[in-house]
Amino acid sequence: MITARDGVYFELHSFPFCYCSIAIYFGSLPSFLYSLSTPLTTLDLTMDNKSAFWLYPFSISFTRAKHIGFVQSVVVLTLASALIVSPISSVSSFQLSAFGPSRKEVNILLKVIFCLKMEVNKEKYAADLSSIKEAHARISSFIHKTPVMTSESLDAISGRRLFFKCECFQKGGAFKFRGACNAIFSLDDQQAAKGVVTHSSGNHAAALALAAKLRGITAYVVIPKNAPECKVQNVLRYGGQIIWSEAPVQSREEIATKVLQETGAAFIHPYDDGRIISGQGTISLELLEQAPLIDTIIVPISGGGLMSGVALAAKSINPAIRILAAEPKGANDAAQSKAAGRIVTLPETNTVADGLRAFLGELTWPVVRDLVDDIITVDDMEIIDAMRLCYEILKVAVEPSGAIGLAAVLSDSFRSNPAWKDCNRIGIILSGGNLDLEVLWASFRK
Amino acid sequence: MITARDGVYFELHSFPFCYCSIAIYFGSLPSFLYSLSTPLTTLDLTMDNKSAFWLYPFSISFTRAKHIGFVQSVVVLTLASALIVSPISSVSSFQLSAFGPSRKEVNILLKVIFCLKMEVNKEKYAADLSSIKEAHARISSFIHKTPVMTSESLDAISGRRLFFKCECFQKGGAFKFRGACNAIFSLDDQQAAKGVVTHSSGNHAAALALAAKLRGITAYVVIPKNAPECKVQNVLRYGGQIIWSEAPVQSREEIATKVLQETGAAFIHPYDDGRIISGQGTISLELLEQAPLIDTIIVPISGGGLMSGVALAAKSINPAIRILAAEPKGANDAAQSKAAGRIVTLPETNTVADGLRAFLGELTWPVVRDLVDDIITVDDMEIIDAMRLCYEILKVAVEPSGAIGLAAVLSDSFRSNPAWKDCNRIGIILSGGNLDLEVLWASFRK
Repeated sequence: MITARDGVYFELHSFPFCYCSIAIYFGSLPSFLYSLSTPLTTLDLTMDNKSAFWLYPFSISFTRAKHIGFVQSVVVLTLASALIVSPISSVSSFQLSAFGPSRKEVNILLKVIFCLKMEVNKEKYAADLSSIKEAHARISSFIHKTPVMTSESLDAISGRRLFFKCECFQKGGAFKFRGACNAIFSLDDQQAAKGVVTHSSGNHAAALALAAKLRGITAYVVIPKNAPECKVQNVLRYGGQIIWSEAPVQSREEIATKVLQETGAAFIHPYDDGRIISGQGTISLELLEQAPLIDTIIVPISGGGLMSGVALAAKSINPAIRILAAEPKGANDAAQSKAAGRIVTLPETNTVADGLRAFLGELTWPVVRDLVDDIITVDDMEIIDAMRLCYEILKVAVEPSGAIGLAAVLSDSFRSNPAWKDCNRIGIILSGGNLDLEVLWASFRK
Repeated sequence: MITARDGVYFELHSFPFCYCSIAIYFGSLPSFLYSLSTPLTTLDLTMDNKSAFWLYPFSISFTRAKHIGFVQSVVVLTLASALIVSPISSVSSFQLSAFGPSRKEVNILLKVIFCLKMEVNKEKYAADLSSIKEAHARISSFIHKTPVMTSESLDAISGRRLFFKCECFQKGGAFKFRGACNAIFSLDDQQAAKGVVTHSSGNHAAALALAAKLRGITAYVVIPKNAPECKVQNVLRYGGQIIWSEAPVQSREEIATKVLQETGAAFIHPYDDGRIISGQGTISLELLEQAPLIDTIIVPISGGGLMSGVALAAKSINPAIRILAAEPKGANDAAQSKAAGRIVTLPETNTVADGLRAFLGELTWPVVRDLVDDIITVDDMEIIDAMRLCYEILKVAVEPSGAIGLAAVLSDSFRSNPAWKDCNRIGIILSGGNLDLEVLWASFRK
């Protein structure tokens, strides 16, 4: 990765244990000011978040870093100090391990930096590691600790080691139960007695109905008429009260507001809610315990609740971890938002992944903007092909939204991107498995 | 359960911690002799294996067993002594826990009895707990320790607590890899160098090819032309050398023998082989560690390799456990064999469960005869319905043979049988997941 702009020269090979050279020349004052005025998110993604360094007009030059010990430590500490006071928070994916200090030292350093930065930026995010740990304590007796599966066949196909966190095995058939459970068990008794209300295309609805049932309260669920039948059946099975709406998000929201006013129930947004984000973040706590050596996590992105929780928890535990989002090309609002540096919504979406049609929210956007290292978009055929591999090799029944992480790993845009060629141990979240398979059963009845 | 015959009266309520009365009156000498001449397997199955007691002309009568302590212990010891010298080995499912001693004491007692009986009958069985533990040590670095999954929804549907041992997640997509791996790594180097040969409808073939690949030797696999395409693809993926045969078992065996003579390879039968049985038995070691409180295991039965391994290991660890087999009505040779007291083969089989068409072998039959408490037969529609539940609720992609254990638990013949109404915590082996789903993918391509 080599980048140059306005007198600032920056070079970094981030192959740990191999070879490293870094050279940052003095930047001019105009370039410094220009950098400050440029939102990080509009920079070329191949630069990763290392562009944060452009802000600092100092110069260092090394080759063969491993021959230099003490000096590098000083450099690292200098960089660390600079990063701590930096107004930009997204430095966590930077690979310092090539600088000379051991990977462990670097990770401790990164962690200190990250924690300080998280503290500084606390008000920006709706959840943090402690709220996520609290959520885990609150919900762990209700949720399944889903297994992490591996497959040598899929490792061979992808050329990486893959660790599948099977949230499709979560209660209700999707990760959504974690957030719903945390939100519902966070309510005080008086609030809870009036019930909860939400709008959702299905998985959040079923999850909320199930969590409400566990607490013995009512869940009012606004569901668009085009939701998949099996997801609607899940809501009914768990005793949720269904209120139908039209497909557009606006219609859902209006009806949900009406129910809210009539019942006094607590509104629980499918993703733009700190309690939901904290609940989804518990996935990272488990995944990093089950597969502690992963260097990358790939997460399906829709409204960003799952993404935010996973990114906040994972980067707090291991700031060096890469967090990548996988998004359908037909609903690529998150990729467009990252590129534009602001929330972008789309007039319409068109994808087989019915669970990934929502847009980023006010609470999820800052996390996606700052902590997500890249968004990989894939088309529907890539999603179906990945689903097929999940069924035929992993033997896991995922829905299209659930398979998109595998689709991203197998996509050309991921494979050919040099920024990700050292992503060797990748956690993939198989987010859900609620899918109508009637065509399959009909074929058996013949 | 009340049974009476020829002056012998026997009554047992086996609801632990509840109420128990037992009365065995003196049997006459003719009845004793008659019992001896009657093969156990031809007795009415509702009698379970308690009919072993008919052999002993002694009398005991109790009510409210929990009010009597020492006397019952003496009784249990007397029964135990009697059982140890009994020529009939299948006493292990007898519920002594209602007699007064604690469940733990009873289990220790049953275990002593069982071990002594296993020792007496050692030559009858092709494997035992120690060969199964050796197999586990040999293969555990190669196999997946498959997860045990639970589902409150399926518990509610079945009215029991179910523990699904997901062998469909095993390498090669089925439990078969355990046995194949054990067999191949049991060979000495000289034998191994000549390769291995087998005939199989698919899962054993793929498993053997994969295990052979791990050891770096050749696997010659005779496959019938009607084998499912995905299973054939698995063999090819793992580098197995395919030799085609006609569908009937006879044709497969002839061709396998021919290959054997030409290559000098070691023949590894899909199920009638002690190494295979020991390998499959490792499932019980894991299952009873992952879900130690199960009181019943339901196992798909075909050639009996899986059944034998699971039963030998599980009853050696917990003699009180019930072992039930699940078999398709269209290939019910095992049920017929149990009824007839000898191996019965069928002129043809007709079932959607392509993995369950084999017949019991010389080595698997004695275990099935002695240790399997009952065989539950289900029709193809029950299998498909159970598959559907596996996909839609568990999110696990099973093949029809893999879903048959769940089909058995949900069948009327199981639910309505009073002998199984206290089977509360049931282990179900989801044996494999190799299934052509082309119809599903074709529907997405539209």
